[in-house]
Amino acid sequence: MTEGPTFLALPDRMSKPRSRGITHILDKGLPQAATEDLLDQAAHLIDIVKIGWGIGYVDPTLPRRIAAYADAGVPVCLGGTLTEIVARQDQVARFRRWALSIGVSHIEVSNGLQALTDDRKLGLIKELAADFVVLAETGSKDGSYPSTPEDWAEEMVRDLDAGAQFVVAEGRESGTVGLYDADQAVHEEIVSAIIGQIPPDRIIFEAPLKAQQTWFITCLGAEVNLGNIEPSSVLPLETLRLGLRADTAAVQIPQ
Amino acid sequence: MTEGPTFLALPDRMSKPRSRGITHILDKGLPQAATEDLLDQAAHLIDIVKIGWGIGYVDPTLPRRIAAYADAGVPVCLGGTLTEIVARQDQVARFRRWALSIGVSHIEVSNGLQALTDDRKLGLIKELAADFVVLAETGSKDGSYPSTPEDWAEEMVRDLDAGAQFVVAEGRESGTVGLYDADQAVHEEIVSAIIGQIPPDRIIFEAPLKAQQTWFITCLGAEVNLGNIEPSSVLPLETLRLGLRADTAAVQIPQ
Amino acid sequence: MTEGPTFLALPDRMSKPRSRGITHILDKGLPQAATEDLLDQAAHLIDIVKIGWGIGYVDPTLPRRIAAYADAGVPVCLGGTLTEIVARQDQVARFRRWALSIGVSHIEVSNGLQALTDDRKLGLIKELAADFVVLAETGSKDGSYPSTPEDWAEEMVRDLDAGAQFVVAEGRESGTVGLYDADQAVHEEIVSAIIGQIPPDRIIFEAPLKAQQTWFITCLGAEVNLGNIEPSSVLPLETLRLGLRADTAAVQIPQ
Repeated sequence: MTEGPTFLALPDRMSKPRSRGITHILDKGLPQAATEDLLDQAAHLIDIVKIGWGIGYVDPTLPRRIAAYADAGVPVCLGGTLTEIVARQDQVARFRRWALSIGVSHIEVSNGLQALTDDRKLGLIKELAADFVVLAETGSKDGSYPSTPEDWAEEMVRDLDAGAQFVVAEGRESGTVGLYDADQAVHEEIVSAIIGQIPPDRIIFEAPLKAQQTWFITCLGAEVNLGNIEPSSVLPLETLRLGLRADTAAVQIPQ
Repeated sequence: MTEGPTFLALPDRMSKPRSRGITHILDKGLPQAATEDLLDQAAHLIDIVKIGWGIGYVDPTLPRRIAAYADAGVPVCLGGTLTEIVARQDQVARFRRWALSIGVSHIEVSNGLQALTDDRKLGLIKELAADFVVLAETGSKDGSYPSTPEDWAEEMVRDLDAGAQFVVAEGRESGTVGLYDADQAVHEEIVSAIIGQIPPDRIIFEAPLKAQQTWFITCLGAEVNLGNIEPSSVLPLETLRLGLRADTAAVQIPQ
Repeated sequence: MTEGPTFLALPDRMSKPRSRGITHILDKGLPQAATEDLLDQAAHLIDIVKIGWGIGYVDPTLPRRIAAYADAGVPVCLGGTLTEIVARQDQVARFRRWALSIGVSHIEVSNGLQALTDDRKLGLIKELAADFVVLAETGSKDGSYPSTPEDWAEEMVRDLDAGAQFVVAEGRESGTVGLYDADQAVHEEIVSAIIGQIPPDRIIFEAPLKAQQTWFITCLGAEVNLGNIEPSSVLPLETLRLGLRADTAAVQIPQ
């Protein structure tokens, strides 16, 4: 990588490995050469990649792709919907062996399908944290849970206590549930409750859409942790963080 | 390709060449290396590729790409809008020679522009079926025809009788016409009329959007034939078929 | 590149270098191999590439990508938001040296953030036109300026007089501001004012969405200059220009 330009005054950014300003991307089955192409350009800006929902189970190229991510210093997380289905079919032991065998280091534990008890979710976090970095997600796929902002924060506190490294606030790929209403607007009261209870280096807000990323950067700063970023949006998100796009230029750039 | 994981109980899926559960993708001018990258990962899940509308006429790399698809066992179909324009300019003979010369094996015959008589459409199906596998599409680009659900089914019956291998229900790339209203919702009465008359291994429903794919899989099962799938959605669609995504998990996965 | 088919009667198109029918694409950080893949297929259809907003400042692969574009005969333009930030931080001299050192030949000068005086914008055009081909953009990122259609045209006349090679009418990546209302519909009165004052080979209309491209081609012909085209839409746009897609077939194709 060549040295980039340095003539502008921009917000500070930590470099990898970083605890703030994490960019967590959503891989929906990125082909191998496209993955290597992305990493060649932007690996220094990608902190975690999630293989969405059950994509990892049907993708025959996953082991090779995980190796490419590892070579570039990017850890791979399996999506929570897969973990939920594994739990419902009582296959956690075989799931764990398979994940370890292909080089997975991170696992998401969620309850988006609402088929697990609270205790089962906490048990899974504890069990999987022995072998993996656990990301515990809160929020359902249909927006029905948790009931109140306080419930969001309390579930996250319990998940961290059970051994999760990060808690993740649900936004899906669409940005229309969980943290967001059907029109993609942020439920600000949920964000307020979360940041009142959870340290900023332990929370990842799923924010798939530009307007949502802009909202978080404007309200919580350049180094907010954002998740479910499309692979093609890694550089655009970095420009939003630094005030190099119109949406955040007035906020981020010294006048 | 390495062996994938096998620890979950999932719906059965035929392997290629399959007559049910066909995934038909829409190629809008996929570049060569991206095509090879996709095929390396997912050729076993792609049954037919359509080169959309007149893309094939302006894409200088088409012959090379068709060769790559052929090497991976994926037949290539030219889009129906091109066939309609060819027919209006009375160039069917030269069109056929060109298509055969570059390795095209499938041709779509449609009347989306509504500039052909019914007899002309049937004549084209019969004529082209001598050299190609014909996919006959029903539905206009502006949603104005056929007039009734019964008309959809009757046109499809006539098209099969004329020699089409498959009939295709129009949804366009946008999912807002033909089978769908402007809000992308399924016209269920059209689907009902079609499945009452057409065997499931002869009909392909264009379903470009996730919510539409979910609707068909939920109502007609994992092995419904779906078309106009974006190349980047081949693996996501497979997870919907198998219940490995939240949208279909409750329906598809044994509890 | 192999010879393509020639059996259809289609609208005439100039070949490169062309002064009409320009396709100007928006590069939001296209990775290197994907860029080369696109150019292999469609370089003959791409007249200018814009590296959007501040993407160029954060993309470590930019010098290599500019070289690939240059090898394919495609000039590279830096986005106007970057120029505006540079001007606000009084770093024009260092910006110019950096841009020249990496092979940039075109610069966009805009006032989308509305932080420059009119005279400062004109001064930048004049200053940068000494070393670069200047594209001068009119329209703000939030839709607040210019106030009237006549103001659009008058600013463009002044920008051309100051040394711009092209004037560009704002549409952003979203197609919801500038030339368009929030529902993506064209402000026809702005287009009318512009074409009354600006020669067609000096104006580029940003038209990121298919419906907008269709509107311009239907109203102004196959060889209207269109900008902010997605890289994956270069071939689809060419089919719209030639009447090889349903949206424009009735208008463009001889009956």
